[in-house]
Amino acid sequence: MKLSEIKSPSDLKKMNVNELNQLCSEIRSTLIETVSKTGGHLSSNLGVVELTVALHYVFDSPKDKIFFDVGHQCYTHKLLTGRYDSFSTLRQFGGISGFEKRCESVHDVWEAGHSSTSLSAAYAMAVARDLNHEKYSVVPVIGDGAITSGMSFEALDQIGGSKHNLIIIFNDNNMSISKNVGAISNVLNKVRTAKPYTNSKKTLKALLQTSNFGESVLDSLTQLKESIKKNVIDTSIFGEFGIDYIGPFDGHDIKEMINVFRLAKTHEGPIVIHLLTKKGKGYPLCEDDKEGYWHGVGAFDPLTGASLNILPEEHLTWSQIFSETLTRMAKKDSRICAITPAMITGSKLEKFFALYPERAFDCGIAEEHAATFAAGLAISNKRPFLSIYSTFLQRAYDQINHDICRMDLPVVLGIDRAQLGGEDGDTHHGVFDVGILTPLPHMILAQPKDSKEAQNLLYTAFHQNHPFGIRYPKGSVVYEELEDFKEIPIGSWEILSDSDKPDAYIITYGPEVDRLYHKMHTNNLNIAIVNARFFKPLDTQCICKIAASKKPVFTYEIDMEKGGLSSSILEFCNDHDLKMHLTRYGIADQYVTHGSVNALKKSLGIDINTVCNDIIAKVYNK
Amino acid sequence: MKLSEIKSPSDLKKMNVNELNQLCSEIRSTLIETVSKTGGHLSSNLGVVELTVALHYVFDSPKDKIFFDVGHQCYTHKLLTGRYDSFSTLRQFGGISGFEKRCESVHDVWEAGHSSTSLSAAYAMAVARDLNHEKYSVVPVIGDGAITSGMSFEALDQIGGSKHNLIIIFNDNNMSISKNVGAISNVLNKVRTAKPYTNSKKTLKALLQTSNFGESVLDSLTQLKESIKKNVIDTSIFGEFGIDYIGPFDGHDIKEMINVFRLAKTHEGPIVIHLLTKKGKGYPLCEDDKEGYWHGVGAFDPLTGASLNILPEEHLTWSQIFSETLTRMAKKDSRICAITPAMITGSKLEKFFALYPERAFDCGIAEEHAATFAAGLAISNKRPFLSIYSTFLQRAYDQINHDICRMDLPVVLGIDRAQLGGEDGDTHHGVFDVGILTPLPHMILAQPKDSKEAQNLLYTAFHQNHPFGIRYPKGSVVYEELEDFKEIPIGSWEILSDSDKPDAYIITYGPEVDRLYHKMHTNNLNIAIVNARFFKPLDTQCICKIAASKKPVFTYEIDMEKGGLSSSILEFCNDHDLKMHLTRYGIADQYVTHGSVNALKKSLGIDINTVCNDIIAKVYNK
Repeated sequence: MKLSEIKSPSDLKKMNVNELNQLCSEIRSTLIETVSKTGGHLSSNLGVVELTVALHYVFDSPKDKIFFDVGHQCYTHKLLTGRYDSFSTLRQFGGISGFEKRCESVHDVWEAGHSSTSLSAAYAMAVARDLNHEKYSVVPVIGDGAITSGMSFEALDQIGGSKHNLIIIFNDNNMSISKNVGAISNVLNKVRTAKPYTNSKKTLKALLQTSNFGESVLDSLTQLKESIKKNVIDTSIFGEFGIDYIGPFDGHDIKEMINVFRLAKTHEGPIVIHLLTKKGKGYPLCEDDKEGYWHGVGAFDPLTGASLNILPEEHLTWSQIFSETLTRMAKKDSRICAITPAMITGSKLEKFFALYPERAFDCGIAEEHAATFAAGLAISNKRPFLSIYSTFLQRAYDQINHDICRMDLPVVLGIDRAQLGGEDGDTHHGVFDVGILTPLPHMILAQPKDSKEAQNLLYTAFHQNHPFGIRYPKGSVVYEELEDFKEIPIGSWEILSDSDKPDAYIITYGPEVDRLYHKMHTNNLNIAIVNARFFKPLDTQCICKIAASKKPVFTYEIDMEKGGLSSSILEFCNDHDLKMHLTRYGIADQYVTHGSVNALKKSLGIDINTVCNDIIAKVYNK
Repeated sequence: MKLSEIKSPSDLKKMNVNELNQLCSEIRSTLIETVSKTGGHLSSNLGVVELTVALHYVFDSPKDKIFFDVGHQCYTHKLLTGRYDSFSTLRQFGGISGFEKRCESVHDVWEAGHSSTSLSAAYAMAVARDLNHEKYSVVPVIGDGAITSGMSFEALDQIGGSKHNLIIIFNDNNMSISKNVGAISNVLNKVRTAKPYTNSKKTLKALLQTSNFGESVLDSLTQLKESIKKNVIDTSIFGEFGIDYIGPFDGHDIKEMINVFRLAKTHEGPIVIHLLTKKGKGYPLCEDDKEGYWHGVGAFDPLTGASLNILPEEHLTWSQIFSETLTRMAKKDSRICAITPAMITGSKLEKFFALYPERAFDCGIAEEHAATFAAGLAISNKRPFLSIYSTFLQRAYDQINHDICRMDLPVVLGIDRAQLGGEDGDTHHGVFDVGILTPLPHMILAQPKDSKEAQNLLYTAFHQNHPFGIRYPKGSVVYEELEDFKEIPIGSWEILSDSDKPDAYIITYGPEVDRLYHKMHTNNLNIAIVNARFFKPLDTQCICKIAASKKPVFTYEIDMEKGGLSSSILEFCNDHDLKMHLTRYGIADQYVTHGSVNALKKSLGIDINTVCNDIIAKVYNK
């Protein structure tokens, strides 16, 4: 049966192991071909092809609940559950999502985009099943990166303290996004090569390779499992949580996995199945990648691997600009440290880590610890730069509030991937941070309009003594390296206008400032653009001046409107009796789907053309 | 030397073990006497008297960094570090805090109020020390409740992956706030009684009781430590993280602890010292308390233990009202489940847990897991009620956003201890939740003005299909049990007024509604009180009506103004071209200190008398 003929997982059950392996090849080709056009998560998906096929072979989705932690490794799952025909629309606006989505299929039973939620969800599903006296398997698939996040430990603590049946597929590729860090990762390295395991496993392997699934084999397996447990469990973190564990097994050997999963189905209580997989399996360019460049990719040439997303000339990404500037500043100021929760590559911190390894900290997927660790460094007279994606910063909200802001510590937050994130969709847009950070006392929050301002804002942040967040979006901008940095007065905005008496004002921030200014300037429109580079504190003098002009005022935010910049301006105006109406363009009360940033802006009615035409019509009654 | 004569920890070093034990008795009496008047955390402080004395005897604070996870068990530390004279002002407005505070003393090196931040902070301090090539000990004290929170695991993973010297005092009283739960707790129970440990320990104990601290003994200790490690480490979770571990030792035996701490000082790399302590030690009423009633207490009679905070007649606390109502509803609807992160007693859920143990879940100090677990139950057609203090809900912000709201799941959040929390101070006020929850799509957020509305709101929440937060403050209110519940239209406010044409409107919520109405009514003032029981969605018709009246409008929020109710009203008015100025009373951009709620309100200028007088002056030009 060809991949194109598979309409549901039940079709798999008619196939033999050879056919399944053949299918895996076809899936792999489809993945590489599609992702080379659409971009997406490639390595992790190539790593779980056999694993996913074996799961759907043994378990009965959607009755059995199979789902993936983070969810970005669900492509094979999508191909097997009726989405082959729409697979070419992956991550495109109006197409299928790169993550599991309940609205797409009954086979998508849980949604995620942030790591380490699967065990809590799975435990809940198991509890609910047992409360209802129902019978089915709950089968979360979680990677070795995600398992070291705090949430996973909290869930393991609960799972191990109970006796609900739960089959945890531990997909161990010895990588999270890039190389794993931390003690647990070291322990797992030991498990992978542990002697007692290796000895037992030879026997086990032989048994698992039998094609007879009768009672007697299961009995032997059960006995064997006991003997493995005795030998292996003491070197497994799961044993500490009182959770049964078997493995590791070859996550690319379908036959072995089918037998192990069948065994697990009969297991009483929670059990971890440890599978060793290779990230990028079957595509040599990915297999050799230890830095995570192939974790999430844009369009590329499948033959050479060359990226088809070439940055415009003289451009750098915002991440590159910040990490480059940080590295330059760290040369002069030995107090500066860099912290990232598992995002060295995404945040472009490779150079900092190479030059200043003692001052560079990869905390793994552990945003909470990373933020409080930053607070601890700041209290010890270091100058930490915590590089964190806006959407993952949400995980550290309490630590930013309780530890950093409450103690008024000079932690610099580099808030990457702010504003609309594009193709990764609703779990990845960085549109909430302004709303949650501005109510925090002591917090300063800014966003630069261009690369020069980026450099000067970072310089400013390191030359003051309060929590200082600088947000910047995905994407790139012309990079102009400054010889000398200068401080930007905190809370100062600037007005970009070709005239002293503009007909209207548009208050905005980030890359939209120059885009809008360019638009107005080239069209000879007398509308001033206000670069509101500080969300907090506001430039109250500037607001007063604008209000005094009695001209129409617009705000343009590629972020949630609620609690955002315009909301702060309205509060200020109200409290200081300034009569100023704002026509606001921003994201209303909704989660935003996936698609290119431009497609998303259009769908929200906040693309620059729509907004400009609307403003021009309003100002000039056109 | 008497306690009153101790001005700094260095004074301890002149005393012998007998004198130190004598001092401990005196400290204990002081704790009981003071807390019986001021209220505070009693049991945990009684448990760490000897531990704290021994730490300050061996280590040199503030050069060595000694600090307590959560920080509420720092009373002995305060008494030994120059705060004996001010100790009677504990937790009072203008007095010393019930938590560590950097502004109070150089001996307070870290602040907390939320659990499980100490290991991340300690690791940062150790890293900073080693970067500076300095020499001192970093000594966090963490309990067995706090260690099972995800953040602690994240930190342990980092600590174990490095080789920085760090002395983790693991204060194991087999309780968090009440009884511990989960797998790790079970494992620790095994450690406490493990055979290999007991055998080794007899020898160790003999050695530790020698008073000679010479090199040779240290050598023996080192050897012994190795042998213990071999025997005990495999039963310790810390071993999994690659962190050396010794113990458990008697946390009330000063001599033993002094010797162990001296040993630890010479240890290379991170080490965990496991101490067994008894919560409430030396005060029989506390010692016998397994439910956590003596964890945080109000004023009481030290002889009988009887509380001096008697609820007014016919009153119940808001927590009691919600848990009582929940229990009644759970009788009729078997889908209803209750979840608490280690707060059964604080949230008054004892009855629910007793009646419906299968549907009652204590997740331990694990707010993140608790929220996603609730999402998982909701997705499985259960009706979870997640009872969570407003300040601790901050820990689960991402889970509420990413898991609950994004998937639009019917989780009911019972947001306890909202608004000003009083004596626990800045880490415990529940004043941020409105600002972070209202920007979340799909979220409904409400607060009842009285017990009847509380019951009906909970009923309403269970009869709709979206995330629904109901917040309620500390304190009590008249309880009127409803025979039949009725749904409150979502997003509906009500106007309480003695006239059709009021001279002004005060928009407020929660218990302030009736207080203000009573004030206006008894003073024959024609000012309407608007019960804005929904923060989201707003009652837009009501707002339009108020705006149309052209009367003065006031808002009164015992919460952060930024992003709060008044902010939402201003956004709505702006976007719908309603001209309505708000005179806003609320908490401006600052963290609020500790003290009685009334004292705090006064200090912020938002007590009811100040506000009413101000409003009357503004409305009637008095």
